Amino acid sequence: MRIRLIVAALALALGALPASAAKAPKAVRIPDAAMSQAAKLRDQALASDLAYRITESLTTEVGARMAGSEADARAVEWAKAKFKSLGYEKVWTEPVTFPKWERRSEHGAVLGAHSQPLSLTALGGSPGGAVEGDVVRFTDFASLEAAPAGSLAGKIAFLDFQMEPKRDGADYGMGSRIRTRGPTAAASKGAIGYLMHSAGTDSHRMPHTGITRFDDGVSPIPAAALASPDAQQLSRLVAMGPQRVRLALDCGWNGEATSYNVIGEVRGSSKPDEVVLIGGHLDSWDLGTGAIDDGAGVGISMAAGALIAKMPKHPARTIRVVAFANEEQGLHGGRAYAAAHLPQITKHQIGAESDFGADRIYGYASSLPENAHEADEQILSALAPLGITRLEAGKGEGPGSDVGPFAQQGLAWASLAQDGTHYFDLHHTPDDTFDKIDPGAIQQNAAAYAVFAYLAASADGSFGSSAKPADASASH
Amino acid sequence: MRIRLIVAALALALGALPASAAKAPKAVRIPDAAMSQAAKLRDQALASDLAYRITESLTTEVGARMAGSEADARAVEWAKAKFKSLGYEKVWTEPVTFPKWERRSEHGAVLGAHSQPLSLTALGGSPGGAVEGDVVRFTDFASLEAAPAGSLAGKIAFLDFQMEPKRDGADYGMGSRIRTRGPTAAASKGAIGYLMHSAGTDSHRMPHTGITRFDDGVSPIPAAALASPDAQQLSRLVAMGPQRVRLALDCGWNGEATSYNVIGEVRGSSKPDEVVLIGGHLDSWDLGTGAIDDGAGVGISMAAGALIAKMPKHPARTIRVVAFANEEQGLHGGRAYAAAHLPQITKHQIGAESDFGADRIYGYASSLPENAHEADEQILSALAPLGITRLEAGKGEGPGSDVGPFAQQGLAWASLAQDGTHYFDLHHTPDDTFDKIDPGAIQQNAAAYAVFAYLAASADGSFGSSAKPADASASH
Repeated sequence: MRIRLIVAALALALGALPASAAKAPKAVRIPDAAMSQAAKLRDQALASDLAYRITESLTTEVGARMAGSEADARAVEWAKAKFKSLGYEKVWTEPVTFPKWERRSEHGAVLGAHSQPLSLTALGGSPGGAVEGDVVRFTDFASLEAAPAGSLAGKIAFLDFQMEPKRDGADYGMGSRIRTRGPTAAASKGAIGYLMHSAGTDSHRMPHTGITRFDDGVSPIPAAALASPDAQQLSRLVAMGPQRVRLALDCGWNGEATSYNVIGEVRGSSKPDEVVLIGGHLDSWDLGTGAIDDGAGVGISMAAGALIAKMPKHPARTIRVVAFANEEQGLHGGRAYAAAHLPQITKHQIGAESDFGADRIYGYASSLPENAHEADEQILSALAPLGITRLEAGKGEGPGSDVGPFAQQGLAWASLAQDGTHYFDLHHTPDDTFDKIDPGAIQQNAAAYAVFAYLAASADGSFGSSAKPADASASH
Repeated sequence: MRIRLIVAALALALGALPASAAKAPKAVRIPDAAMSQAAKLRDQALASDLAYRITESLTTEVGARMAGSEADARAVEWAKAKFKSLGYEKVWTEPVTFPKWERRSEHGAVLGAHSQPLSLTALGGSPGGAVEGDVVRFTDFASLEAAPAGSLAGKIAFLDFQMEPKRDGADYGMGSRIRTRGPTAAASKGAIGYLMHSAGTDSHRMPHTGITRFDDGVSPIPAAALASPDAQQLSRLVAMGPQRVRLALDCGWNGEATSYNVIGEVRGSSKPDEVVLIGGHLDSWDLGTGAIDDGAGVGISMAAGALIAKMPKHPARTIRVVAFANEEQGLHGGRAYAAAHLPQITKHQIGAESDFGADRIYGYASSLPENAHEADEQILSALAPLGITRLEAGKGEGPGSDVGPFAQQGLAWASLAQDGTHYFDLHHTPDDTFDKIDPGAIQQNAAAYAVFAYLAASADGSFGSSAKPADASASH
């Protein structure tokens, strides 16, 4: 809140806010009639299997759909057709261009007296290449960073950190850091290859892929994640004595690709040019069929909009559902959306993305300003029958992944926090398939998004979206 | 029991039994001193992590060890060295020759509008080949058998049967039938390929391999198992309309290989030429590291013998532990053992193999004759503190896999039945790795085998092993 006030003051000084912002802001609340409609909508949504069926359709008919692949293009066509069949009144696409990464083959093996294959997968963004070297094991990122310069020359660095399951997925902070930053750290010490214990919480022979990046000035090295049993195996072998490993990846960047944010709208009844933005991301990694990441988010948000579309009277504002392109390799769809729509930021009432699986939502948080406190409480009260309470500060609140770039520029946002205890069992693995989704849980999600979107679209007054001055947003 | 009496009468008439068998058999019991020693042994075994550590050593240092592979040869060397290091007094090998099957690569995919890869693995014994055809789905074996002749010409048969978890693994009867008999049934109707829902109970992207066979006169066709999520996916797609699938396997029989039954003995104190036979099988499938199938059986039986070896006084009879060769592809090690040792069958007090994972033993059964009823009850009473009760008839009792061929020829046998509820989650998959073993459960197993072997080796009198006449054994 302190930061928010400083930013507002700064914005005022810079003249960045509209003139009306200088006045005492009007209190925002949701009309009683909308509250009672939301209760009906909630019950209808809980009785509907629409989110489950949409997710089934995407993951079955398209399957895995890595950004830039042939299947990604089919997913775009699927999303356009699905929006239309669900009764969305306006459906369109917006192009998103990004570097294209391809996985062709991947092998790893322990060599020598204990010769055996290792179950691993290339990290997205890894270069191809075949390397052989002795393994140097680290159990945390700080130890790798502290390794002396040149100490890994000719070696394969192995970062063996085990994530623990947490409801808010807190360990993914370190897990994703090890994935995105580890290869650069290893290469900068001279390593010729990088292996990590998968950023996951399962015990299956399922490596977890995910994007990595290399800093400028560092020569990229082949980088892969070991399945948890294989990381444990390599750890036991390394404890017995020096182990030589071969890592052979055929993968890499290959030009550019263009995909699309696919957008559907349910037109508002009285303020159709103002929008409530919800969504999920359409792309997945290539290993699974992208059910929990993020077919579910697409299913939940598409279903929420479709359920609102069927109401006798639409809410005041338009419900805009976005199936974002290429989230996995760097929020490309979210960035493109923010760039394209920044001029209309004040027309965006709020944004929220579902991108943390399909388990039940337990918490709500938002960026709503003080003058919208009553509306915020009204939303929470309508979500309460779904078992949702206010999120503790610092427990995973924040805008969803693709909404993040626009939120950094000033979009109001909400969190509908899903239980992520089991999310990292499946995340980015071959095991991310439709059979893992619990129908009751995904229906609860769709009900929560429907209620949230309907109420946000019905509120009398703004939730505070407005462009931040450049230097304020840069500090986020 | 009726069958047993008829067999005994037949044997008598044929003069196949030794002369003493014609007299009223002597009652067999276990001396009280041995019973009290067994109680001490049980407590020592429960406090020992030896079985766990032996299993760790095999699965880590050797890893996967498919029969006839380079790793299988390393496993033989490992077993010889391990027996010696554990204090076994006599260690030797006996050759086992068998056809060699190799897996080189395997791919499957749905073609057309819903193009996507399928997670599958070739069944052991499948020929290589690349085929494309429309899928015809069956939900049980009887329906496939009932398909009209020629009705599958040019098609890929898909048998989609889901095993349910059971403590005694009862569903594996049908699961293994579908794997071993399905390809022949499909080929005989004209199918060009065969896919089955893996014979397993998990929900992971882990296909289950296992041996299949083709009847004489049937042209072998490529045959593979789909991971459960992929079988469900294909089932959903087939429900939408015709689906064309490509199945490309590079695998097949490639000459012969010789491996070895590796045998270690703890010498008996007064009847060293009589043996109690326990064991597990040394080979594994190639996908996992063979922890529950059957590194655990090797670890349990080797540890049981080693714990007995450390006792102040060895039991009367010799404890013979066999790490059997190539169980997976047709009980080759067990058959070779039976063939080599048939002349000494009466010197075998009894046999029991551990080959159903590493979960706790809950049941005991045996083939002991009526005159050994007291000894049988004594063994059960010594196992009771481990939570073991007498198995209900028809609930999975019988000799273990490799002991089976010899038992068919007249070897007395015992079952120490393990809880198999979760066995088929891992069986024959990449996920069969050491981390899945519970240390407490495998210690209970080792304690049970140690107690059983010690008491059988201490009994005053025979448990009834004797060669059956050829036509009696053929009826089993």
